Amino acid sequence: MTRINENYRKLPAGYLFPEIGRRVSAYAAANPSAKIIRLGIGDVTLPLVPAVVEALRDAAQEAGTPAGVHGYAPDQGYDFLLDAILECDYRARGVALDADEVFVSDGSKQDSGNIQEIFGLDQRIGVTDPVYPVYVDTNVMAGRTGAVDDKGRFAGITYLACNEANGFVPPPPDLDLDLVYLCSPNNPTGAVMSRAQLEAWVTWARQRDAVLIFDAAYDAFIQDPALPRSIYEIEGAKSCAIEMRSYSKRAGFTGLRCAYTVVPKGVTGTTASGERVPLRNLWARRQSTKFNGVPYVVQRAAAAVHTPEGRKQTAEQVAHYMENARTLRRGLGGAGFACFGGENAPYLWMRTPGGLSSWACFDKLLAEAHVVCTPGSGFGSAGEGYVRLSAFNSRENVEEAIRRVKKAFAS
Amino acid sequence: MTRINENYRKLPAGYLFPEIGRRVSAYAAANPSAKIIRLGIGDVTLPLVPAVVEALRDAAQEAGTPAGVHGYAPDQGYDFLLDAILECDYRARGVALDADEVFVSDGSKQDSGNIQEIFGLDQRIGVTDPVYPVYVDTNVMAGRTGAVDDKGRFAGITYLACNEANGFVPPPPDLDLDLVYLCSPNNPTGAVMSRAQLEAWVTWARQRDAVLIFDAAYDAFIQDPALPRSIYEIEGAKSCAIEMRSYSKRAGFTGLRCAYTVVPKGVTGTTASGERVPLRNLWARRQSTKFNGVPYVVQRAAAAVHTPEGRKQTAEQVAHYMENARTLRRGLGGAGFACFGGENAPYLWMRTPGGLSSWACFDKLLAEAHVVCTPGSGFGSAGEGYVRLSAFNSRENVEEAIRRVKKAFAS
Repeated sequence: MTRINENYRKLPAGYLFPEIGRRVSAYAAANPSAKIIRLGIGDVTLPLVPAVVEALRDAAQEAGTPAGVHGYAPDQGYDFLLDAILECDYRARGVALDADEVFVSDGSKQDSGNIQEIFGLDQRIGVTDPVYPVYVDTNVMAGRTGAVDDKGRFAGITYLACNEANGFVPPPPDLDLDLVYLCSPNNPTGAVMSRAQLEAWVTWARQRDAVLIFDAAYDAFIQDPALPRSIYEIEGAKSCAIEMRSYSKRAGFTGLRCAYTVVPKGVTGTTASGERVPLRNLWARRQSTKFNGVPYVVQRAAAAVHTPEGRKQTAEQVAHYMENARTLRRGLGGAGFACFGGENAPYLWMRTPGGLSSWACFDKLLAEAHVVCTPGSGFGSAGEGYVRLSAFNSRENVEEAIRRVKKAFAS
Repeated sequence: MTRINENYRKLPAGYLFPEIGRRVSAYAAANPSAKIIRLGIGDVTLPLVPAVVEALRDAAQEAGTPAGVHGYAPDQGYDFLLDAILECDYRARGVALDADEVFVSDGSKQDSGNIQEIFGLDQRIGVTDPVYPVYVDTNVMAGRTGAVDDKGRFAGITYLACNEANGFVPPPPDLDLDLVYLCSPNNPTGAVMSRAQLEAWVTWARQRDAVLIFDAAYDAFIQDPALPRSIYEIEGAKSCAIEMRSYSKRAGFTGLRCAYTVVPKGVTGTTASGERVPLRNLWARRQSTKFNGVPYVVQRAAAAVHTPEGRKQTAEQVAHYMENARTLRRGLGGAGFACFGGENAPYLWMRTPGGLSSWACFDKLLAEAHVVCTPGSGFGSAGEGYVRLSAFNSRENVEEAIRRVKKAFAS
């Protein structure tokens, strides 16, 4: 008799974003004339830049010729892309990595969901709260947690509260954890870790022999040159941190799918007998067994992001989104809404007015402003009382959304 | 202190194909003048067909326009592709499925590796032997097995021997298993299950309340019109079977990445308390949490495979490879080598001459014929004494390989 993985039953009914999609669809169906502005899901709205389109088109053309056949890609990615990553994302910032420490993949969502597989089931997991749901949900599915409580917290996971008092960046806790997920620039709060905060976490991880999973999918949105883009800009991080980066938001690849994960050879885990094993080798085994590479045409498109034209064109897109973020901050903040983030990240984290619950605020904004946000409570119990607003939209829609949100709460 | 998933330590040092790659690279480096013919890894050699290239190029162009922005894809795939799959791969063969039973993915390797996640860790797994390594390796990684023995068999897995006596298609065993992986047309043996054999397995699965994972990645190579292409052509299969199909071999997508998995709503697993849960819902949750869709441009390319031009052009490629398979069978079989498969599958399964071990035969063919095969023992202990030859190559290379293999064993 086939038995299911009952850990799935511990999860709430649906993943956050499909649930939002269902509510929006239902509202749109019932109110076909409503002009809905979507600041909910963090999806890009600008088309692929010309340098990327050209690379993609040329690679497609090439793949139709006998000399251009590209079958299975190399396990970790093509050298042309790995070299561009090493040079542009790391060497240019003083970080030296080897090509065999970089794993090209089809998304940071996948990588941050799959990375837990290489660790023991008894690992003590820490997450910031609120947090991108994938970190927790994938650990629940794997069986690392107990049941969920009425606040949506799973037994066995340590939640590190992000709140206004700590600027939504919790300090390392005074307890032993084995694996901690950090996301900076943060999804959902838009907070960014300073050099000093990163140093504190790296020091803590090295002292406790813990591993940090550092999700830097939004690094391209950092505006302040003093802020590190990579955790490897911190001394010692190459012995305790795994880093994830993505082309999704920096270059509009949400529908094209390319990302990478860095596992430096110095990051190790131990066996029961105390042997040290480089996590890089386990991840390589995982990827070569359960993954089959990113399409050649997509890797060519990703490499085009690193060319001078690609960098210039994608920087303009990032600038557009960040101007949206500033507009949201100014518009809503100026009207008295308590807004956080949005300065080095494409997300604004807004306290719900009048103590509304996150979902009540979501429903009110959808019904009265026809604006879709993301309920903060969907990211964890400490997100209750907040909503996330995304800067991924047109300037006009952002300005219109500000007017409507203000009006909805003016009455 | 971070602990690794020690199940990984039960696995042999490397996944089969990287190991082959390493031996071939080492040989090529030491013998730079050797003209190596690769009949090892099952990678395609023909370029993408014009209909696919055109769709890919057009989609790339479209993605660069404001009206053509395609961000995150729908969780299970775009309707245009799902509809084409339902119509061309199923309805045309008398099988009715719903769109929400089909999950578009980036590969059957991934799907067949990930599917075990939705089942309990105590499941009794059955695999044919030899078998595509991913089925076993991913269950080992998940912790469903004990240690490996000196024949490469893992405690806790039931191996169903494929041999010359049963035509490499084992009958259902007289014991209870929960989950059985079947692959037809088979990788590596090239055997194809007949309607009667499929019926026997479906009957068995329904009697035992087991689930069949039916990997039909090579269905396009079936030449005999009497053979089923889908397990759902068998009455009752929609209550016990999950099916996987791929564009990799049928349309040369190994480097483009598109496949799909079908989980009919009638296929269920049970909880400890006896409740029946549709596996489709668990797989949907798994995919929406740990996957983020196939690139829009690739889904457009896959849909082009189903157009009249796409079908005609890809059928010509399949015909080319199958003529290679026939050539290999005739050439080697006629010279006294014992060859199996290759009639409805792109793989030939050859008994090693003179009782050589699989790896000894691999090394001999590499060194003396400069031909790369795949050692049968890499697919399981019952594969010992065989090698797999792939039909994915040019006609000239196949003919030259036959001459060289004959010569290597003539001395």
